[in-house]
Amino acid sequence: MNFIESLQWRYATKKMDPTKRIPSETVERIVEAVRLAPTSSGLQPFELVLVTNTEVRSRLKAAANGQAQVVDCSVLLVFAAWDTYTPERINAAFDLVNAERGFTSEGWENYRKFLLGSYPARDAETNFQHTAKQAYIGLGIALAAAALEQVDSTPMEGFDPSAVDDILGLRHRGLRSVALLPLGYRDASGDWLVNLKKVRRPRERFVTTID
Amino acid sequence: MNFIESLQWRYATKKMDPTKRIPSETVERIVEAVRLAPTSSGLQPFELVLVTNTEVRSRLKAAANGQAQVVDCSVLLVFAAWDTYTPERINAAFDLVNAERGFTSEGWENYRKFLLGSYPARDAETNFQHTAKQAYIGLGIALAAAALEQVDSTPMEGFDPSAVDDILGLRHRGLRSVALLPLGYRDASGDWLVNLKKVRRPRERFVTTID
Repeated sequence: MNFIESLQWRYATKKMDPTKRIPSETVERIVEAVRLAPTSSGLQPFELVLVTNTEVRSRLKAAANGQAQVVDCSVLLVFAAWDTYTPERINAAFDLVNAERGFTSEGWENYRKFLLGSYPARDAETNFQHTAKQAYIGLGIALAAAALEQVDSTPMEGFDPSAVDDILGLRHRGLRSVALLPLGYRDASGDWLVNLKKVRRPRERFVTTID
Repeated sequence: MNFIESLQWRYATKKMDPTKRIPSETVERIVEAVRLAPTSSGLQPFELVLVTNTEVRSRLKAAANGQAQVVDCSVLLVFAAWDTYTPERINAAFDLVNAERGFTSEGWENYRKFLLGSYPARDAETNFQHTAKQAYIGLGIALAAAALEQVDSTPMEGFDPSAVDDILGLRHRGLRSVALLPLGYRDASGDWLVNLKKVRRPRERFVTTID
């Protein structure tokens, strides 16, 4: 199954089979794909929380309008974006690059100074809107990775972020939940959506070309 | 090359070879992947603009801090998000689903009413922050698709959105540019980044597990 076929195969699974487990090496490949996702200035301003704990997922389900995939999935991925940009976070990212590459450069250090001089001074909400978008690049990559692995996934925004942040203890870590992604396997017999046609705007109402 | 290897292969290409053209069927597969990207409530609140025109790209380069990939790429993808949610846009999406599936349902129509009663009343900026994030799912899928096709890509936020909107005539179409994605082929001999190690936070500083 090529990538297009995988994307056609995937859908927002409404009923997952709670008895089926994703092999851990498969989950790890999906996580690794998200870790490799490109982000603005390479800052990776988000983290992943992998939840399998039954009691925690039960509480998360209550915070997610009772959506059953939160507990029926094999593992729940929570995308948690940085609540703002701080000098510490920016410096850690730049220091890591220097350490991994084994050298520094004037251009790179000037770029660090530029970010240090602009991002932390902005209000936290502006920064969070930016970090959240970077997390959504990761979400797109995760959806792609899951589809290629023939793992079902259901991206969710329909939840109470404050409640999820409380349950997962994200706030004191400077993180805010932006999306949930249950990963598992469809229970086709119990899923009203599985046999319905996938609908997208036709190409001519989605794409404009300037030749 | 599997997906992980493709993501390791890709990088934010700094120098593209302006003489190399991506086959049109390859571009179309990348576009189709983006069209298939899931979005909140299936609204697909963004569009793609594909720019090959030399003069337009030259003006876009000036609006993008002179980044040469804008003109050296084979095709420039512009991700343009809806500037807000309107009843017309929401109804068009729901009507399309009904037309394509050949039936309506009470649950689906109630959901339409819920969105009509909530999204259009919100301020445009709140809605735009939401549509922009959906466009970033598409950006993540595009990055994945390009990597799988061994096509180089450079996601860009470093541009003047108002200037880009003017050049492409997006404003009167109710669209706002959120990201540029030049697609092309690396000119490795002229690219300072191609041989530098890709740096990401290690898994233990990116992932938390709640078992």
